[in-house]
Order: sequence, then structure tokens, then C-alpha cells
Amino acid sequence: MNILITGAAGMIGRKLTERLASEGGLNGRPIDRLTLLDVVMPTTATRFTGKTDLVAADLSTPGEAARAIAHRPDTIFHLAGVVSGEAELDFDKGYRVNLDGTRALLEAIRATGDGYRPRLVYTSSIAVFGAPFPESIPDDFHLTPLTSYGAQKAIGEALLADYTRRGFCDGVGIRLPSIVVRPGKPNKAASGFFSGIIREPLAGVEAQLPVSEAVVHTHASPRAAIGFLMRAAGLARDALGPRINLSMPGVCCTVADQIASLRRIAGERVAARIRHEHDPLVARIVDGWPQRIEARRARELGFKAENSFDEIVRIHIDEDRGGTFVD
Amino acid sequence: MNILITGAAGMIGRKLTERLASEGGLNGRPIDRLTLLDVVMPTTATRFTGKTDLVAADLSTPGEAARAIAHRPDTIFHLAGVVSGEAELDFDKGYRVNLDGTRALLEAIRATGDGYRPRLVYTSSIAVFGAPFPESIPDDFHLTPLTSYGAQKAIGEALLADYTRRGFCDGVGIRLPSIVVRPGKPNKAASGFFSGIIREPLAGVEAQLPVSEAVVHTHASPRAAIGFLMRAAGLARDALGPRINLSMPGVCCTVADQIASLRRIAGERVAARIRHEHDPLVARIVDGWPQRIEARRARELGFKAENSFDEIVRIHIDEDRGGTFVD
Repeated sequence: MNILITGAAGMIGRKLTERLASEGGLNGRPIDRLTLLDVVMPTTATRFTGKTDLVAADLSTPGEAARAIAHRPDTIFHLAGVVSGEAELDFDKGYRVNLDGTRALLEAIRATGDGYRPRLVYTSSIAVFGAPFPESIPDDFHLTPLTSYGAQKAIGEALLADYTRRGFCDGVGIRLPSIVVRPGKPNKAASGFFSGIIREPLAGVEAQLPVSEAVVHTHASPRAAIGFLMRAAGLARDALGPRINLSMPGVCCTVADQIASLRRIAGERVAARIRHEHDPLVARIVDGWPQRIEARRARELGFKAENSFDEIVRIHIDEDRGGTFVD
Repeated sequence: MNILITGAAGMIGRKLTERLASEGGLNGRPIDRLTLLDVVMPTTATRFTGKTDLVAADLSTPGEAARAIAHRPDTIFHLAGVVSGEAELDFDKGYRVNLDGTRALLEAIRATGDGYRPRLVYTSSIAVFGAPFPESIPDDFHLTPLTSYGAQKAIGEALLADYTRRGFCDGVGIRLPSIVVRPGKPNKAASGFFSGIIREPLAGVEAQLPVSEAVVHTHASPRAAIGFLMRAAGLARDALGPRINLSMPGVCCTVADQIASLRRIAGERVAARIRHEHDPLVARIVDGWPQRIEARRARELGFKAENSFDEIVRIHIDEDRGGTFVD
């Protein structure tokens, strides 16, 4: 197999790369070649014995998308994108990267012709939905995003579905819930605090909570997200039908539930490192976001998330903190 | 008022122009200036005493969108577009005109700045929906188009909503049902036969019916469509909220019901001019189209269609045939 990962230097991209490299295959087929692309030079996959190409490129720059698929990858994980907070602050950059970059990739695939029809796994987001919502968002709920990021992701879904219907590529769009706990430094996503209030206290650092503890949200671990991507790559076209964009499952809970999990697992001293500090911009964005996602189709198609937020906290401690935390 | 109509040489564009010209105003405000734009030179509005600019231009050509709004129209009716059949046959042209043209218009408005925020009425289509459907499509049903035209319209809706949310323009998207009876020559829309089976027999000409008489569809007259456009132009922003794209109401009936209306109004000899001749391409496209549209929000906001298909046939005879038909 020949695999291209765009956005390979991002958190999900790095974890996906390491997982694929350590398994040496995807859905039972060995991986011969990995192309890792990002706007900054990605780091190579350790433990991978096949050929690796590292590419620093912006897909929205003319010619770059064609170069990225020059070796005709069978499977493309298109993770590249500007996150929600940044897309809201920089309108042009958000549309250029999230819309034009995705369209350039689709056009490059189409221009290849010659029967080339790769599986293209596209990471969309539950930010395609916008308030008001029913108690649980069903699979057939309309997309009325309340951020530019959500609008760009919704447009990407529509393009992916049309290019797939026309036979130019073989797309699967997966709407990720908030991926928690993100390791490392905070990024510019408005959802960053959902990770921050777990990650920073476990590292002995104070964390800011910019919204009320009553806020309800749906979460999945980075490990679950990698599982979604790999499942999407292996999904039979017939099982999917023409509605190729799917809401992913997750753990639905309040911020108070998140904090309770942290307290149960790491103790009161750790949980006490969360400081309430309201941020009106973040609160307004989060207010427009979905709370509970039904994800019935995805569950039926074998996509699996965690069963509790406790599991999510434990995965972070295990995977990103070597099993320990700062008491 | 200063009004721009794109797609002004099309059927809806010409009827809207004549209606605005004959009324001399829109929603109680006098019209001083009309800019009529299309890829072919539009004809001037008869009976209009204000200034008229006629422009032959393609909005997707760099610079044309900015020129089109140089006189800062208060209200823009964006009707320009490639129809469904053509967008399916010519992938590049459909995306260039329907997506890039719409985006260029939005970008030109945004680039004007300086507080310029026109009411932009965008004609979308019920082709944004794709089968399978519930018995009646509710306002919160997801958009899963099964044509490139539908995908392009769905993307236009998403752009319009985001540009409106960001304060760059003041958009209202209206999803038109099939507009029937279209006068004149058939166009390349796959829905063309819905008009053809009424228009041609009334003109003494045989008409082809490419689908089964059991096909259910939602229709509105060109007169109703002009009413939708004018209502959309006058709608208060507060009444609309952030969900600015609305499914329009219409008359929902079978092809058999359409034929029965024709027979009731024009007699058996006229109705006998319909010839059944199955067309697999048209049948496949129409199979994926919505049948019954709920349009609850639009009705509550004062958008009105006809109450029966008989009314639609009579409007055609009255408005486009001078009150007569070929027996």
C-alpha cells in the first residue's frame, strides 16, 4: 500500500503515522510507502521499514496537490486544515487552506484520470452543525454551521460527496467530535480548553476554564480518532452508499463530568488546578456547537469511541504521560 | 433603490425585471436604477423610467463581479447559474459558474467594505436534497445532493450563510421547487419535461414524458417564483435568524395529476399530445429528487405558492399565451 497523510505534522497526523508505521500495514495490507505532507516539514516515522517521503507544502499553492499525489497513493488521509479559532480570526486563510486546499487535492486526483480512484478519508468536524439543536443530533440533521471553520468543513463534505459520486475519487468524510485529551501545547482551536482542563492539571500546571461547568459536549480520545480514520480507510463502498459523510460517536458529558473524572483518577489536588475564567468569545463559539451526537450510522458501520470520560483520561495518562502525572 | 439582477436574460430574470419595472418599486421603495447582467446581453426593461445598465459578463471572470456591483446596489438578485442537466454534463463549467461565480460575487461585496452590506437574494434549489427521503422533507433535513448542480447550490448556501454571519452581506437563500410552466424553448434542465408536458400540448405540439406518471414532485409557477424573490428581498433580518436558507412552498402532485389538470382545463385532445418515451438519464436524476417539501418556515415567513396545479396551468395560459391555447 501507498499512503499519503496531509496535515501529517499535526497531533492526529503524527499519531496516525506512528500507528501505521508500528503496524506496518492497514486493514491487513502491508504499507510500502508513506508520504507525509504538511505546511511545516513533518518528522519521519520511526520504526517504519518502507519508503517515506517528507513534504513541506501548502496544497492550495498551484501544483502542490498534483505533486503530493504523484506516486498515486491508494489511500489518502486528508487531515490538513486551519483550526476553528484561526479560521474565525483569519477569514482568507481559513478559506484558502480549508476550502481551496481540499478542492485542489480533489482536482489533482480527478486530473490524474487513468482509472486512478484513491480512498480519500476526509476529517470533517461536528462544527458543521449549528444551534439550535434537538436533544440528540440525528444523522439526517441539516448542516447550519456558526463558524467559518464549520462552513468550510461542510463545503468540503459536499465537494467530497460529489467527486465521489462522479467516480473521481472514493471518499469517506468523518465528522470528528472534540478530540480530548490533546497532548502538547494548546493550539488555536476554540475547543482547546476541553483538553487543557485535563492536560495542564496532570502536568502540575494551572488550567483556564472559559465556559460554564454545565456545558455539554461530545469527546473522543486521539486513540479513538486514529481508529475512526483506519476504519474509514477500510470501509467497503457498498456499506456506505451515497451518503459518505458520517458523524462519529463519542462520550457525551458535561464539563463537570470531565472534572469529576479527573478528580476520581488523579485526586482533588490535581482537579483544584482548574481556574474558572470566563472568555466571552470562546463561550459564544461553544454555545453554537452541538452537544449530543447520535452517530447511529457510524456505530452500525463499526466506528468505536470510548464508553466513559474516565477511559479518555486514562488513555492520556498512558499514551502521552508514560503512565504518571504530577500529584 | 438600486437593484442588480444576475442571470437577467433567463426566464425568471426577465419576468422579475418586467415585474419590477412595471411596479417601479420594491417593497414600497421606488427603484432608481436597474443593472441587468447575464453572460448574454440582457434586453432592457420596457416601461421602466429609471436608469438601466445592461451588462454582458461572466461573474467568474476576474474583475467582473467587482464591476457588476460598482454602483453599490442595495438589493442583488443572484439568479445566474448553469442548470442541472448542463452542470451534470459539463463538470468544469458547472463548478466555475455556479460555485466560483457565486463566490466571486460574495468576495466582491466583501472587498467593497465601507459598511456596504446589500441584501443578496440567492436562488438555490430543492436539488440540494437527495434520496432517500421521509414522506415530507422538513426544514431541518440534511443536504445530500445527488447531482453536481445540487452540490454547487448547497455550497453556495453555505458560503452565503457564512458571509452573512460575518456581516459582509445580508443574504437570503431560497430553494425553488420546479418552476412550471416555463414558457419558450426547453432548456437543459433535467426537470424541463415538467413544463414541456403542459406547454407543448397547449401550443399544439407533441411533448415527451421521460418518466412514469406516478412521479411525485413539487411545483410553483414563475409568478410564484417572482413573489418568492420579492418577499425574500423585503424580509426583515430579525425574522430570519442565522438559518438564512429556506425551502420554498409549492404544489405537490404526481405527473398524472398534472396531466389531469391539463385535461380539465384544455380538454382531452390537448392532453393526448403527451407521448410516453422513457429516458433513463432523466429518470435516474428525477428519482434522486425530493418529492414533497414541508416548507413550514417559509410559509410562516409569508412565502406563498399556488394551491393547485390547475392554478399553475391557468397562470401559464394567462401570462404566456395571451389567454388562449391550440385546441
